Amino acid sequence: QKPVTVAEYLFTRLHQIGIRSVHGLPGDFNLVALDYIPKAGLKWVGSVNELNAAYAADGYARIKNISALVTTFGVGELSAINGIAGAFSEHVPIVHIVGCPSTISQRNGMLLHHTLGNGDFTVFYTMAEQIACNSARLTTPANIPDQIDHAIRQCYIRSRPVYLMLPTDMVEKKVEGARLEQAIDLTEPPNDPAREDYVVDVVLRYLHAARTPVVLVDACAVRHRVVDEVQALVEKAKLPVFVTPMGKGAVDEDSDAYGGVYAGTGSHPAVSQQVESSDLVLSVGALKSDFNTTGFSYRTSQLSMIEFHSTHCTVRYSEYPGVRMRGVLRKVTERLDVDKMVWKGEGKLPPRVVNKVEDNRDPGQEIKQAYFWPRIGEYLKERDIVVTETGTANFGIWETKFPRGVTGVNQILWGSIGWAVGAAQGAALAARDAGSKRRTVLFVGDGAFQLTVQELSTMIRLGLDITIFLLYNEGFTIERFIHGMDAGYNDIARWQYADIPRVFGATEKQARSFVIKTKDELERLLKDPSFCDGKGVQLVELWMPREDAPRALKITTEVAARTNALVEE
Amino acid sequence: QKPVTVAEYLFTRLHQIGIRSVHGLPGDFNLVALDYIPKAGLKWVGSVNELNAAYAADGYARIKNISALVTTFGVGELSAINGIAGAFSEHVPIVHIVGCPSTISQRNGMLLHHTLGNGDFTVFYTMAEQIACNSARLTTPANIPDQIDHAIRQCYIRSRPVYLMLPTDMVEKKVEGARLEQAIDLTEPPNDPAREDYVVDVVLRYLHAARTPVVLVDACAVRHRVVDEVQALVEKAKLPVFVTPMGKGAVDEDSDAYGGVYAGTGSHPAVSQQVESSDLVLSVGALKSDFNTTGFSYRTSQLSMIEFHSTHCTVRYSEYPGVRMRGVLRKVTERLDVDKMVWKGEGKLPPRVVNKVEDNRDPGQEIKQAYFWPRIGEYLKERDIVVTETGTANFGIWETKFPRGVTGVNQILWGSIGWAVGAAQGAALAARDAGSKRRTVLFVGDGAFQLTVQELSTMIRLGLDITIFLLYNEGFTIERFIHGMDAGYNDIARWQYADIPRVFGATEKQARSFVIKTKDELERLLKDPSFCDGKGVQLVELWMPREDAPRALKITTEVAARTNALVEE
Ligand SMILES: Cc1ncc(C[n+]2csc(CCOP(=O)(O)OP(=O)(O)O)c2C)c(N)n1
Ligand SMILES: Cc1ncc(C[n+]2csc(CCOP(=O)(O)OP(=O)(O)O)c2C)c(N)n1
Ligand SMILES: [Mg+2]
Ligand SMILES: [Mg+2]
Repeated sequence: QKPVTVAEYLFTRLHQIGIRSVHGLPGDFNLVALDYIPKAGLKWVGSVNELNAAYAADGYARIKNISALVTTFGVGELSAINGIAGAFSEHVPIVHIVGCPSTISQRNGMLLHHTLGNGDFTVFYTMAEQIACNSARLTTPANIPDQIDHAIRQCYIRSRPVYLMLPTDMVEKKVEGARLEQAIDLTEPPNDPAREDYVVDVVLRYLHAARTPVVLVDACAVRHRVVDEVQALVEKAKLPVFVTPMGKGAVDEDSDAYGGVYAGTGSHPAVSQQVESSDLVLSVGALKSDFNTTGFSYRTSQLSMIEFHSTHCTVRYSEYPGVRMRGVLRKVTERLDVDKMVWKGEGKLPPRVVNKVEDNRDPGQEIKQAYFWPRIGEYLKERDIVVTETGTANFGIWETKFPRGVTGVNQILWGSIGWAVGAAQGAALAARDAGSKRRTVLFVGDGAFQLTVQELSTMIRLGLDITIFLLYNEGFTIERFIHGMDAGYNDIARWQYADIPRVFGATEKQARSFVIKTKDELERLLKDPSFCDGKGVQLVELWMPREDAPRALKITTEVAARTNALVEE
Repeated sequence: QKPVTVAEYLFTRLHQIGIRSVHGLPGDFNLVALDYIPKAGLKWVGSVNELNAAYAADGYARIKNISALVTTFGVGELSAINGIAGAFSEHVPIVHIVGCPSTISQRNGMLLHHTLGNGDFTVFYTMAEQIACNSARLTTPANIPDQIDHAIRQCYIRSRPVYLMLPTDMVEKKVEGARLEQAIDLTEPPNDPAREDYVVDVVLRYLHAARTPVVLVDACAVRHRVVDEVQALVEKAKLPVFVTPMGKGAVDEDSDAYGGVYAGTGSHPAVSQQVESSDLVLSVGALKSDFNTTGFSYRTSQLSMIEFHSTHCTVRYSEYPGVRMRGVLRKVTERLDVDKMVWKGEGKLPPRVVNKVEDNRDPGQEIKQAYFWPRIGEYLKERDIVVTETGTANFGIWETKFPRGVTGVNQILWGSIGWAVGAAQGAALAARDAGSKRRTVLFVGDGAFQLTVQELSTMIRLGLDITIFLLYNEGFTIERFIHGMDAGYNDIARWQYADIPRVFGATEKQARSFVIKTKDELERLLKDPSFCDGKGVQLVELWMPREDAPRALKITTEVAARTNALVEE
């Protein structure tokens, strides 16, 4: 009825679900498709390499709920694969579109560039499948709209990457455009009502009876978008609420209900005391990885645990597969009878979390981790986007109390260094695409920074507002704490970080650099209104002691070293 | 008898086969293993990211016949996978060692960092297997020496990557060290003598009778190390010899026998005339990919073709599977009776190949591709290593006549941009490890350069001698010729290239930069003895017109665009 090209169909769908910028790199198998990006009202972001582009798409999706990445066959997609694997691991929805040789070339097994030279065009697909919740070869025009709609729906609902292989000869094939008038249904399928009601009843029974209930919010609460549901429950029931490191930012840390970061032995004593002595932990979206739990060190009892997941719930040892958390959380809040609750929140909420700046201020001028992170809490503003990298930053941030509305972005499970630089670019762009004027603040180690440094170029080119604290501590400090404190392999080259923005093309207006070696310099910087404005790219080379690490990191790395060394005799 | 640790065993084996430097990045699952690298007499090269490290290992192997790469589970290995796929595609032997979680953690399905969060520790292995000629999980000490020896042997003989998964709890397990006294047998298994003799007879019959025979040397002649065998045959039989683009450098271009680069319609007319009219083309190690053949444009007849491959030979339409070229080539040379040959080389060899500098010098000051590449031929010295990147460089170099002993390094089949920067680092290091003082000269596009720019830091840190011609033509010129001459997606950010070495830590002694905008400046530079010395890192920002491309590139991209656009109705 209304013929449109495959490319138009695809990119229009991306626009409809809220994507405004598409990350990626050109390659001859995707060039023609790229022509259709502006036509669909989308902006093309040429990143500097595909891994950076994938990281940026990951950051974009964490702010705008979904994102898209376009790469070219073989060389492009495989460069991006670590970024996609990270998104899969961490439940981040990215639509990955790979421009590939025409179906004719594939059928003829042609010895094309970007192939393994063996006529096999399925190898990269087979790899990609393993880190995608849906993948499709778009080879038959009649099926393509269905394939695209299905993939996008899966991507969003399951909050994981999908993979679309788009041959050059399909890009301009005509498909039915009338379908575009109806948006893709992105609502989660409802739970079976009887099963859901059953779980709700069980939960309510425990919740009404609990004497010391707490809520613990983890990664998947954010990634599967139930933060509002959690918030409603916490407010109605006046429950104390804690976050895990991966859940940090999900809860208003300025609210009375907020109790701090819980991560087993890495938590502050008051926090672990309260969570571990609770007779009912409502755990939402848990992802209990080693670095999210200080090495599996929870001392909670399964008998006081109710877990809400995106695919199931568990109550103590009872499992309810297929009962997704969203519906349950909503009904629990709705049906909760506050008067029947044994727990009365009033006056019993946890001690207020504060940035312990003064407690950690030592007299010296060195900028120690213990001091820095609480101090940063005072610098942050409402609705900042805070990106932290694997390394000391990911552990230091536990000591930072976020102002209201701050979004925390980290990759604690996958932990690929360099990710945060790309992710910050994507997150800042997503914020701008959403029409907001949020600052993006990145904390990244000097080691990690080197892996993906050129993404600064994209930040500059796009004119994004990103402030980068580069933790300059002469190498891989987190690794030093695991093994090889003085080993050469944990050293890195000394770069002139402050000059980097200029080299990547920034004018004085587009980027500013700062070298901060003392506490006094840091104080001055953090009080400078023009710095705090956060306009453009600001790069702070922040000198920190080489063998200094946040409290929680020391505990975690000890456990990691022990786990690695464990030998069976 | 002589217990040694697994790590000692492995790294000693790498040393025995000639490796002196190991590329890679640390990660907590490989740290303890890294301690054993210096103990085995190897040098650890911490690259700046894993993809760069893989590219560098590729370059190293192309000069020193084999190389090693160490990465960490998941994040590290997947970052490198595109580099390994390239090595697989292009027949480059890399021993890829991945430090992974302990067998105990794996068995327990622990939710560790760098996993997909699903307890599946086989996913990355499954991906890696597809681009390795051998892969092994080192989980049982008793089997490990066999697994290692087998993998290394396969790697070398089949000239392709192998993958070894080394769990943390195996690193220091004891294995039998007495085996180390016997070197791994790296000799190729001999052909079945009867079958080999049969093929040799057939070849000799054709060769004796041929009136206009030629030899065509391609990629796999180099990668499977039969260049000496080819040389012997060419000399004895006084045959004219041509190279394909991927075979460039395999033949002494200063010798009388050398006829030039054959690549179908992209060849110079005198070359295609001679090859295509030949009544016997002895094709050695052919890899007839699109960009190696100007879009499959050979006009040779299968009836005048004998092909020598690493796994088989073919004579006209007769195939001889399992008959490897090395043995056949040797016997053909041995048994050839020059007196019986119809062909008499004397006086009939092809016209001497020269650098056509004057023919291509136009009066303007712009540095055009047509002029640049022959001019570079005059700048190159004996035994230089010449690395060219996918882009205009890979096609321009067809017009450059190499001095004797020059090694050409390119990635025409896989064609992953950014590769050449890493590969140049590895190649230069390999040359130094081999005790030679060769210059490494890199030709890379401004677009490609940006993808892996930080590997300059490693070049500088290692004090390598690498001269970089950065073809500054404001973006993806090769892509412009395929599609989108003025499209925004073919533009790149304007960097201050000349300042990059300093930012990456180079002192004035370690690196020098040059901005060259005119022919006169270029002439002066290429005549400057200190520049020609090639010491340290030298970065030349070479201004070239945006829409200028080598002759052969224009033809090739036209075919590529046509192939991509081909549609079935
Ligand atoms: C892609 C990748 N390669 C290697 C690692 C292993 N690794 C984890 S943290 C780290 C060092 C980070 O150093 P830096 O960024 O300087 O942080 P610091 O701890 O010093 O603050 C390394 C090498 C990884 N996680 N990801
Ligand atoms: C990893 C990777 N990404 C994308 C491509 C597609 N691609 C091939 S050549 C090229 C442009 C190269 O531009 P440049 O290096 O400036 O070379 P020029 O042709 O301008 O000399 C691109 C983007 C690729 N081959 N590899
Ligand atoms: Mg560091
Ligand atoms: Mg260019």
